[in-house]
Amino acid sequence: MYSFKNDYSEGAHPRILKALTETNLEQVDGYGEDRYTVKAVELLKHRLKRDDVDIHLFSGGTQTNLTALSAFLRPHEAAVAASTGHILVHETGAVEATGHKVISVEVPDGKLTPKHIREAVESHTDEHMVKPRLVYLSNSTEIGTIYTKSELEKIRQLCLEKKLYLYVDGARLGSALCAAGDALKLSDLPGLADAFYIGGTKNGALIGEALIICREELREDFRFHMKQKGALLAKGKLLGIQFLELFRDDLYFDLARHANAMADLLRKAIGGAGHSFFVDSPSNQIFPIFPNEMISRLQENYSFYIWAQMGGDRSAVRLVTSWATDEAAVRRFIGDLESAGG
Amino acid sequence: MYSFKNDYSEGAHPRILKALTETNLEQVDGYGEDRYTVKAVELLKHRLKRDDVDIHLFSGGTQTNLTALSAFLRPHEAAVAASTGHILVHETGAVEATGHKVISVEVPDGKLTPKHIREAVESHTDEHMVKPRLVYLSNSTEIGTIYTKSELEKIRQLCLEKKLYLYVDGARLGSALCAAGDALKLSDLPGLADAFYIGGTKNGALIGEALIICREELREDFRFHMKQKGALLAKGKLLGIQFLELFRDDLYFDLARHANAMADLLRKAIGGAGHSFFVDSPSNQIFPIFPNEMISRLQENYSFYIWAQMGGDRSAVRLVTSWATDEAAVRRFIGDLESAGG
Amino acid sequence: MYSFKNDYSEGAHPRILKALTETNLEQVDGYGEDRYTVKAVELLKHRLKRDDVDIHLFSGGTQTNLTALSAFLRPHEAAVAASTGHILVHETGAVEATGHKVISVEVPDGKLTPKHIREAVESHTDEHMVKPRLVYLSNSTEIGTIYTKSELEKIRQLCLEKKLYLYVDGARLGSALCAAGDALKLSDLPGLADAFYIGGTKNGALIGEALIICREELREDFRFHMKQKGALLAKGKLLGIQFLELFRDDLYFDLARHANAMADLLRKAIGGAGHSFFVDSPSNQIFPIFPNEMISRLQENYSFYIWAQMGGDRSAVRLVTSWATDEAAVRRFIGDLESAGG
Amino acid sequence: MYSFKNDYSEGAHPRILKALTETNLEQVDGYGEDRYTVKAVELLKHRLKRDDVDIHLFSGGTQTNLTALSAFLRPHEAAVAASTGHILVHETGAVEATGHKVISVEVPDGKLTPKHIREAVESHTDEHMVKPRLVYLSNSTEIGTIYTKSELEKIRQLCLEKKLYLYVDGARLGSALCAAGDALKLSDLPGLADAFYIGGTKNGALIGEALIICREELREDFRFHMKQKGALLAKGKLLGIQFLELFRDDLYFDLARHANAMADLLRKAIGGAGHSFFVDSPSNQIFPIFPNEMISRLQENYSFYIWAQMGGDRSAVRLVTSWATDEAAVRRFIGDLESAGG
Repeated sequence: MYSFKNDYSEGAHPRILKALTETNLEQVDGYGEDRYTVKAVELLKHRLKRDDVDIHLFSGGTQTNLTALSAFLRPHEAAVAASTGHILVHETGAVEATGHKVISVEVPDGKLTPKHIREAVESHTDEHMVKPRLVYLSNSTEIGTIYTKSELEKIRQLCLEKKLYLYVDGARLGSALCAAGDALKLSDLPGLADAFYIGGTKNGALIGEALIICREELREDFRFHMKQKGALLAKGKLLGIQFLELFRDDLYFDLARHANAMADLLRKAIGGAGHSFFVDSPSNQIFPIFPNEMISRLQENYSFYIWAQMGGDRSAVRLVTSWATDEAAVRRFIGDLESAGG
Repeated sequence: MYSFKNDYSEGAHPRILKALTETNLEQVDGYGEDRYTVKAVELLKHRLKRDDVDIHLFSGGTQTNLTALSAFLRPHEAAVAASTGHILVHETGAVEATGHKVISVEVPDGKLTPKHIREAVESHTDEHMVKPRLVYLSNSTEIGTIYTKSELEKIRQLCLEKKLYLYVDGARLGSALCAAGDALKLSDLPGLADAFYIGGTKNGALIGEALIICREELREDFRFHMKQKGALLAKGKLLGIQFLELFRDDLYFDLARHANAMADLLRKAIGGAGHSFFVDSPSNQIFPIFPNEMISRLQENYSFYIWAQMGGDRSAVRLVTSWATDEAAVRRFIGDLESAGG
Repeated sequence: MYSFKNDYSEGAHPRILKALTETNLEQVDGYGEDRYTVKAVELLKHRLKRDDVDIHLFSGGTQTNLTALSAFLRPHEAAVAASTGHILVHETGAVEATGHKVISVEVPDGKLTPKHIREAVESHTDEHMVKPRLVYLSNSTEIGTIYTKSELEKIRQLCLEKKLYLYVDGARLGSALCAAGDALKLSDLPGLADAFYIGGTKNGALIGEALIICREELREDFRFHMKQKGALLAKGKLLGIQFLELFRDDLYFDLARHANAMADLLRKAIGGAGHSFFVDSPSNQIFPIFPNEMISRLQENYSFYIWAQMGGDRSAVRLVTSWATDEAAVRRFIGDLESAGG
Repeated sequence: MYSFKNDYSEGAHPRILKALTETNLEQVDGYGEDRYTVKAVELLKHRLKRDDVDIHLFSGGTQTNLTALSAFLRPHEAAVAASTGHILVHETGAVEATGHKVISVEVPDGKLTPKHIREAVESHTDEHMVKPRLVYLSNSTEIGTIYTKSELEKIRQLCLEKKLYLYVDGARLGSALCAAGDALKLSDLPGLADAFYIGGTKNGALIGEALIICREELREDFRFHMKQKGALLAKGKLLGIQFLELFRDDLYFDLARHANAMADLLRKAIGGAGHSFFVDSPSNQIFPIFPNEMISRLQENYSFYIWAQMGGDRSAVRLVTSWATDEAAVRRFIGDLESAGG
């Protein structure tokens, strides 16, 4: 049984475990003040080409989102998110649990547009309603679509006009940045977002997300918020070393490119066999539509999620590739697809 | 420079890193539903001699405390804690941030007694005040003292009488259980506490605390609370494997015994040299009182925290040993102590 | 300028001010334990034909909703509401501020159906999502529609099946109960809802809403929650006396009937003149669609809200009548409507 | 039975009920935007000799405190209060329920000093602890003591030095301002506090507290917070009219002077009879120490709270006078005191 269920099935890139092992018994300071975390932060600033950002390392995405949003927003302020947004659907009300409403915007493809955001903001008119204050978007989105640089620039423009913070959930930022044809670079992000995070867990780390706070007014006292939410690890070195490994050369991007390449292989073979897709996603998640009978046969050897019933005895499934996806398994799947009636 | 600052300066016991490395590329389920976590939970139940408890793995103590207390308490209910309690002093108001008051009880030695708890409860008389509902205690305490089995039984008795939950913060439970002369066993705890956690981070794990929920009414839907607080790691295997290693033989206790033995060495040498202690602590934290001048000299080669100014140009310092403390360093410290005027 | 903007423009029914004046200097107990509040609670139980309910008096609807919902729900539990629901739209995120998500269900007429609720519940499948636990509905709804007894019974049935609490926001319950043709009686409600409130502010009181908690498990310690949310008035007699006056005879229903009768007058005249309505609402709020030019002319003498742009130079407006609406003003409006081109 | 239990046993000053009755059927805007509230706010600004403050009317003290503090503080920030402070003891954790710790400072007389505050602030040193940000004090305090102008100026000075907001709970501000010998004037307060409230409920209003926000950065969007906490009354006129009556001449101060004069009568007679006091309180609350037997006899005709057991068969009791206290009852009490063995 090979799994295409998600991009966190495997552990960490071997270089990370090696680095952890080699430095294991060194005595270092706790709570993210160790030399490795300090170095990782410096390295990330260098990669972002910005000295004037604050960088904090977290162990997971939900934790990053809830800590950041609750630190950034005053009690009456709300976030605006696509209806598929992770904070709206899959974080058990983590943001609401810190007191803030998340305004849902119905979108077909997981992506917010300036028009959506404008409507959401302008329909909140007075103190009897929450005040939209932060735009939350995911790149890549929860359904694998990505934002182009120009789309982000337009959203940025609207955020400036409407005094909104722009926050980018980058759980799968690596895959988004490496998706074919996208001119968006990592170092563009501090100029576009007020805060964003670079996801490690889904791209080669054991655990770890790096939150970049770009806007000055959002930086003050941020470590207090981390501690209060249980996000300051005593052995913070665990996070620092991982980001050091991922970014001291192009490892982070190499891993994302591999995940994307594996998805490309699947996408082309599936499309070539005449199947259509639930959504056109250029990153490491794809959503082909298969006959139900064929799905059953595939499930004998592969695990993956069924995403939506499509009518006509067909369903959309989700196939996710990762930095660790085995090309041989992908080619086997493609072969089995053909013999399964594809 | 050798550090006696805390018990989380080093990484994990090497067996843990080895196990992580060996299982690294296996595909497993996420969010704590992998085979290693399942096995670790079974093993812990076996060690606790109880099948009817729920066990959840967390990455840190503050996260464990805030998730458990906010899940257990209704909005008007409060926790009672010693004034030195970690949730009162060193968690940046994490429990209050979930909406609950923590009632502080002034104690000389970090330990609550039935008398303290009774007074705190009985002084809350009506709906204009919060309702004390949970007793929080740490074992060992934040200043290294420990509860005897009989002390815990008496507190338990009062909790039953007053309808209070008893919660034990076991960040340093290993050291407490292995402290000389204490008859308290790990398997006693489910009969004494409604919930408690077994600390891994400070006793050999990279990260990891195991929360044991013993009381049935507190178990329902607990994973929802974990997810909401950002405590469900996508790669939950990271936690499962660590507890498997720590408990598949006596490693957890061996490590705690080592930490205690190193503290014993220090305690005896320091006491033998005629120094007194701020508090009489039998676990891996000791608080000797030294002349300030001697402290300065020691700080040239050792790092540790100054705990309290004692008057007469003397201060109490905190020396913490861990599973990884080097006996040679301890002996060096003792030698330097003597030559430093001890 | 006569106002049809809302049903809280005027003060209290004169009998209430008289009773307040007559009892003004009596010394009574505070915080809702005075003899008038005690008597009002007894009287309401009698009207509800139920001894086994708890009744608490509040000063406003938002306060009632946020106190009740935060007391009833555990942190991971959510409310389900129609997209037009007051808690979703017009309470500045008051429920979210207590930590709970409100799940929005898109409906055309302000009313939830069992089908809506079932879909909302069944799409929340595991601990990565909030757990729907309470159905919030308003009767009459925010757009003047009402639930029949049989509709409520069906919702009740589903709530039992799905272990959901049913909560009815009765800010305008008087008008709903008195709307022509509805067989729903006040004394039916304790058998249908787990908790509901009887709105006073919008039906003759100066301030005041009476929350009825019918389900036993929701009653415990409720006054703690009230105090914590700032809802226990020191001079609670102010609320008790009002409900005593409203319910010691049929005053509450007489007032609602007057409001409905005034709305009927408007509805018939407007319909008779050939105008259509945005929604078919049988209570004290109506939403006729007028040409914009006519609206401008009416606004010279009457104030009311424009509800929605309808295209074709027409808009829906909201006309609200109250217990205090002057029939002469209504007739003047009808006359002006005709001369304004109606 | 005559009550000295508190200062909210009676209703409102008759002028208030008269004004409510006379304006009862006027149609006015809701939610505090009516002409009476607007006028009351202007009048209060005039009395405070400050145009640049924001004023908001609330229905109770707990509601005022919880709304203000949660609006002013970021999640990791805490309030500092005397251990007797109302928010610490008698508001059921209302401030904690909004997420903020209240740091308790043990004081003998209900009053904070710069020394207390400095110690509380300086013992919070890093991000593992909450950040003290607001000083909460009550004037008069919960045990009847008052702050002199010079004491407040010194606290103010420290707050400026330590970047703390100064918040004054004025539930009994009238009595404090009118206490004999105090040079503190109402118009001094905007120069001393960042925010404070003028209590109406305990000084002649039916309900009502006026919050004055003096510091500019605390004003923004304040009505959003009020709505979110359920504090915006639909019929806000109820509050506006009361403050108009209380401040359009010296009524507010006349009422406070009456309460103080009644307490003076009691204080002198009790002291003259040789009884001592639990605390030296110059305002409308006094705490004489009586033999228990005498207390029992007095309780046959008077109700009051027993405050503390003093040993030697004596207890401190609390006697509270109000704007409505009947001088004849006071004189009767004094007579009975003598015959009861005083």
